[in-house]
Amino acid sequence: MLIHKIESDIHLHPTALCESECVGRGTRVWAFAHVMADAEVGRDCNICGHVFIESGAQVGSRVTIKNNVSIWNGVTLEDDVFVGPGVIFTNDKYPRSPRSAAAIGRYEHVENWLAMTIVRKGATLGAGAIVLPGITVGRYAMIAAGAVITHDVPDFAMMVGNPAQMRGWACMCGRPMGDARACCHCRRKYVDVDGHLEVDQADRA
Amino acid sequence: MLIHKIESDIHLHPTALCESECVGRGTRVWAFAHVMADAEVGRDCNICGHVFIESGAQVGSRVTIKNNVSIWNGVTLEDDVFVGPGVIFTNDKYPRSPRSAAAIGRYEHVENWLAMTIVRKGATLGAGAIVLPGITVGRYAMIAAGAVITHDVPDFAMMVGNPAQMRGWACMCGRPMGDARACCHCRRKYVDVDGHLEVDQADRA
Amino acid sequence: MLIHKIESDIHLHPTALCESECVGRGTRVWAFAHVMADAEVGRDCNICGHVFIESGAQVGSRVTIKNNVSIWNGVTLEDDVFVGPGVIFTNDKYPRSPRSAAAIGRYEHVENWLAMTIVRKGATLGAGAIVLPGITVGRYAMIAAGAVITHDVPDFAMMVGNPAQMRGWACMCGRPMGDARACCHCRRKYVDVDGHLEVDQADRA
Repeated sequence: MLIHKIESDIHLHPTALCESECVGRGTRVWAFAHVMADAEVGRDCNICGHVFIESGAQVGSRVTIKNNVSIWNGVTLEDDVFVGPGVIFTNDKYPRSPRSAAAIGRYEHVENWLAMTIVRKGATLGAGAIVLPGITVGRYAMIAAGAVITHDVPDFAMMVGNPAQMRGWACMCGRPMGDARACCHCRRKYVDVDGHLEVDQADRA
Repeated sequence: MLIHKIESDIHLHPTALCESECVGRGTRVWAFAHVMADAEVGRDCNICGHVFIESGAQVGSRVTIKNNVSIWNGVTLEDDVFVGPGVIFTNDKYPRSPRSAAAIGRYEHVENWLAMTIVRKGATLGAGAIVLPGITVGRYAMIAAGAVITHDVPDFAMMVGNPAQMRGWACMCGRPMGDARACCHCRRKYVDVDGHLEVDQADRA
Repeated sequence: MLIHKIESDIHLHPTALCESECVGRGTRVWAFAHVMADAEVGRDCNICGHVFIESGAQVGSRVTIKNNVSIWNGVTLEDDVFVGPGVIFTNDKYPRSPRSAAAIGRYEHVENWLAMTIVRKGATLGAGAIVLPGITVGRYAMIAAGAVITHDVPDFAMMVGNPAQMRGWACMCGRPMGDARACCHCRRKYVDVDGHLEVDQADRA
């Protein structure tokens, strides 16, 4: 637990294990959670109970990871991401037990099997969602509880079901957008810029 | 661990954390489980390994909570409820990371975001079921493994799928009822009383 | 923690609990995992963080059990099985809380309620898959992430969805087979022998 050497303002529950030296100030790690060495976690994160963060995982700042989630090597969570309870990440497209005779060769080199996942800034992964290997989830996307994500997800897209399908758009504030690409709740408006949804610059001004 | 001050007959695994003073006699809390202060748990419950019960959660008596389940603030489980392994509760309809600039205002007051869940007496939540925020699950309802509950569930209803749909009725004993609203296994009969199924009074006598 | 009496070459994380005397050489048990007494675990297994293995469970050799999985009494995992993160097993077809008045009689004898699960040699259970009670998963079957398995699964079958349906065949190496029952990746060929797929003997020679 070398974390205190670099950042003095971390809340570590007495039963939490934090072996990484790269955890930012203001981050809290709760009961029975385990952050391995060489995992990177930014500032002001909330790492909840029974979470596991593997060596090689990268977590930005102000990220919330609710209970019972594992963040593997190969997974990157950008700033402000919300990971609901029981969300499941993956990092291998053709998993077999690595010590079995049928598969042992494939696991000799990490590049043979490791598929990368990126969750972009501000996205929400709802409770119990599953993200297949090699996927990018766009900025502020809203993944519904129980969705199984099998393809890349556009910025601000709302995804529902198993397999997940797009059901509309979500605002930065979390509410669904109407057909006019505007939020009835917070009044933000959005425009299409080169095929990507963005907050309307006029609206920002 | 003040629990022993009020109830002397609680089984607490050596690795369990119980910070609540409101846990009833005969309740067992297993390895690496964590019951926070101001969580209420009744008598003769079985709180299994790696379970988390948050401050503000309310759990009745004779409730079983299998492994890896989190019971949040806002969730009420009445007496005799069965919560299967990996069941996931939620308490926020529009979740974003609370410290992100896009959402921070919403999380200043709990009434802005907290949605309540009630699971009525004797209901079963099958393994890995997901319950969306703000839902009531009726008495002795039978939620199938893997079901995603998106609407309120009637008493005795059997729910299946993602999103869950009603597939019939379940008896108090757990078996499916036949079309005659009677259980072939335990012989209980049911009647419709003001739109709710109840055990037949004549049958009870 | 009597394990060291029989097998000296086991890696036990300092926070892991291993109460079984039947854990094979080379097996690793990671943080906050719990192996109960009278659970059997073979050699060279990888039992990851927050896993629970109950008394009566049987686990073969070279098995990988990823994080947050519980292996119950009644579950058998043969050699070389891969169990993805968050996979959920079950062992009761009509679960109710065992101490409730409606169900208490049924739980007096284990044979009244315990349903057995067998996962055959080399099979993969993808992340977050759910296996209903009483099911056999065939050799080298490939269960997709998020699949809910409601029926027995043939050897080498690839299963997808909730409820899971068969989508094709998987090779021992983990890749999907083509229509010709051959693997484009590792070149193994398969033949139908009495209704079961097997590796082609000619091909083996």
